Amino acid sequence: MSLFLEVVPVSEAVETVRRIAPSPGCEEIPLEDALYRVLARDVLADIDIPGFDRSTVDGYAVIAADTTGASEAIPAMLQCRGRVLMGKANADRISPGTCWYVPTGGALPEGADAVVMIEHAEQIGDDILVHRPVAPGENVVLRGEDFEGGKTVLERGRMLSPREIGVVAAIGADRVCVMKTPKVGIISTGNEVVPITSTPGPGEVRDANSYLAGTFVAERGCHPVYFGIVRDERAALRQVISSALDQCDVVLISGGSSKDERDNTAAVIEELGEVLVHGIALAPGKPTIIGTARGKPVIGLPGHPASAFVVLVAIVEHLLAAMLGVTVARRTVRARLTQNIPSTRGREDYIRVSLRDGEATPVFGKSGLLNTLVRSEGLVRIPASSEGFEVGEEVEVILW
Amino acid sequence: MSLFLEVVPVSEAVETVRRIAPSPGCEEIPLEDALYRVLARDVLADIDIPGFDRSTVDGYAVIAADTTGASEAIPAMLQCRGRVLMGKANADRISPGTCWYVPTGGALPEGADAVVMIEHAEQIGDDILVHRPVAPGENVVLRGEDFEGGKTVLERGRMLSPREIGVVAAIGADRVCVMKTPKVGIISTGNEVVPITSTPGPGEVRDANSYLAGTFVAERGCHPVYFGIVRDERAALRQVISSALDQCDVVLISGGSSKDERDNTAAVIEELGEVLVHGIALAPGKPTIIGTARGKPVIGLPGHPASAFVVLVAIVEHLLAAMLGVTVARRTVRARLTQNIPSTRGREDYIRVSLRDGEATPVFGKSGLLNTLVRSEGLVRIPASSEGFEVGEEVEVILW
Repeated sequence: MSLFLEVVPVSEAVETVRRIAPSPGCEEIPLEDALYRVLARDVLADIDIPGFDRSTVDGYAVIAADTTGASEAIPAMLQCRGRVLMGKANADRISPGTCWYVPTGGALPEGADAVVMIEHAEQIGDDILVHRPVAPGENVVLRGEDFEGGKTVLERGRMLSPREIGVVAAIGADRVCVMKTPKVGIISTGNEVVPITSTPGPGEVRDANSYLAGTFVAERGCHPVYFGIVRDERAALRQVISSALDQCDVVLISGGSSKDERDNTAAVIEELGEVLVHGIALAPGKPTIIGTARGKPVIGLPGHPASAFVVLVAIVEHLLAAMLGVTVARRTVRARLTQNIPSTRGREDYIRVSLRDGEATPVFGKSGLLNTLVRSEGLVRIPASSEGFEVGEEVEVILW
Repeated sequence: MSLFLEVVPVSEAVETVRRIAPSPGCEEIPLEDALYRVLARDVLADIDIPGFDRSTVDGYAVIAADTTGASEAIPAMLQCRGRVLMGKANADRISPGTCWYVPTGGALPEGADAVVMIEHAEQIGDDILVHRPVAPGENVVLRGEDFEGGKTVLERGRMLSPREIGVVAAIGADRVCVMKTPKVGIISTGNEVVPITSTPGPGEVRDANSYLAGTFVAERGCHPVYFGIVRDERAALRQVISSALDQCDVVLISGGSSKDERDNTAAVIEELGEVLVHGIALAPGKPTIIGTARGKPVIGLPGHPASAFVVLVAIVEHLLAAMLGVTVARRTVRARLTQNIPSTRGREDYIRVSLRDGEATPVFGKSGLLNTLVRSEGLVRIPASSEGFEVGEEVEVILW
């Protein structure tokens, strides 16, 4: 392998991971467990929702035409035939000149087409004086107006937030068919890496990457499986990657930022399968490896935690999204730069920035520093075609 | 109780829920389980991170002054004394005129203050020709530059995203002290409400609110405890609220949007404790109840799912944040309105909008419709002091 990596553009790396993304398959689970899961099938309304014409206010169900011209001075007088009870269809068909009291959410009697709010009516014995006219449909949700029976309500590929869960509940699906949770194997390599419970000796550092990568994939709807720290030796690495491939859908290996280690990781992936990309025109994150083995993606992340995190955001996120069949939906804000950000043409740069009052300030500190991740609010992406951004320019910030 | 509610401004309702928010206390948990949990104590670095001066590149550790004036034409010549191995402090103190090969992440020999990248050096036997000068500190992360031993790294009240988890791992905390997960009791009321597994009969609707509210609180770091559907009868309601108060830190009761039901819910809260607010100058969401019983908040949400969701966002979110000791951090974007949004002065309005190409369009449909929640991307808040926004105006959209 050569000294310098043959880098590919970010777009090509993203295409590559999307191409090799395996589907985890689907499963049926109870709706209360489905928060953040991804629909594997369209969800259809079983019946019209609501199943009846429904009042949106406390008031009197009427035939709208009976209230035409009603005013404070000349109210319309209607005979009240009774009260609708909640959860029942307990009123007779309405006849002209009559009305029924109906509470918010109650069913309109057959033939009624509007509701007069109690605030606009006055009760005199059995009669109701209506002080304002209502139009047909006023203060009413019509049968099937929310969801029409048999129609698609939510499409496959939709992630279930509380709002979608509420909608699925309303159409009566107490179980949903969702994508299985992909299992992602997490491996740290490097002779300098020690468990986080250790006090590092001279030259040693703690394994932040396993936690960073594991919780990153968890946040994106995957299940991390931790394989601990492996010494930078081919046989040991091969054994652990092989075991991770047995148990997981994807394997992430962090570490190996020095040339020797990079070569080791790449060589082992090549032995077990194929290296597709070794080096991306991305900063930080250049020494990234994309490979496959036994039909599963194997990704080599840089050893520096902050660089590893940029690769998780710029590349791995697309892999996980493709597996789940969702689009990568990033929250972004626009902000003005307080400083120039120079960049090298031909390379996509991700610059950590802090945000304050609509202004984005690059976070100082070498890219290897982990503290920059918690002192920043997001990333500014500088496309490969650009030589950077100037102070005062409005840029898009990808929020963490 | 009177026919019309005595409404309070949203700001007062928010102040009220913040004032009555009980602390759930704290607990120590393993770091790998801490995603999205909230720190209950400051986290300090135990030692300097990194614990040694560390190279950020593959190259040669040098005394920077030895490279002064080096160029392609007149390189500086340094004697290479050996290779630093990863995870060791294995080099002697550097002497002037010499250098050590050091891989990315390796420890600099004592006395070295910069690293020359291999790309800028040439090996001739035991000698290294340096083609570019380096400044002191170049390509080096200094001991303690990431985190200084004994200093606060993350403050209490911080929610742990993957980036914070990585930082906590780096400073060796395999267990963290976090706020306990508040238990939130979820109750649905109303004689028209049936379980989601039922096919609603005439006048009946399925219980979407339990799922909507339960997953909303789960999304905000709380544990929902479901108490099912209670008929609109005081004795039954009192028994279930009482049981929820025994088991939970907060109780949310949805339903009771008609006046009779509102009165019932308020009366039962009054029996068990105190009603503090009954009616908020908020649309949708006016018939909201805020009370306390046995030192715990009891909130009455509107029965319409879409209205209930606005109250969750506008009011309940502040309660849960105050309990966990975090600030409500909303993701917002600015967008231009495609239509006028009229509003009534003196009332805070929340209008669902869909977003497309930087433009916000109000989602049509009556506020009671659940489908508006999944056909929109967020809410535009119209302050009580405003009579609305005009087409073309730039507004802030609170993203779902």
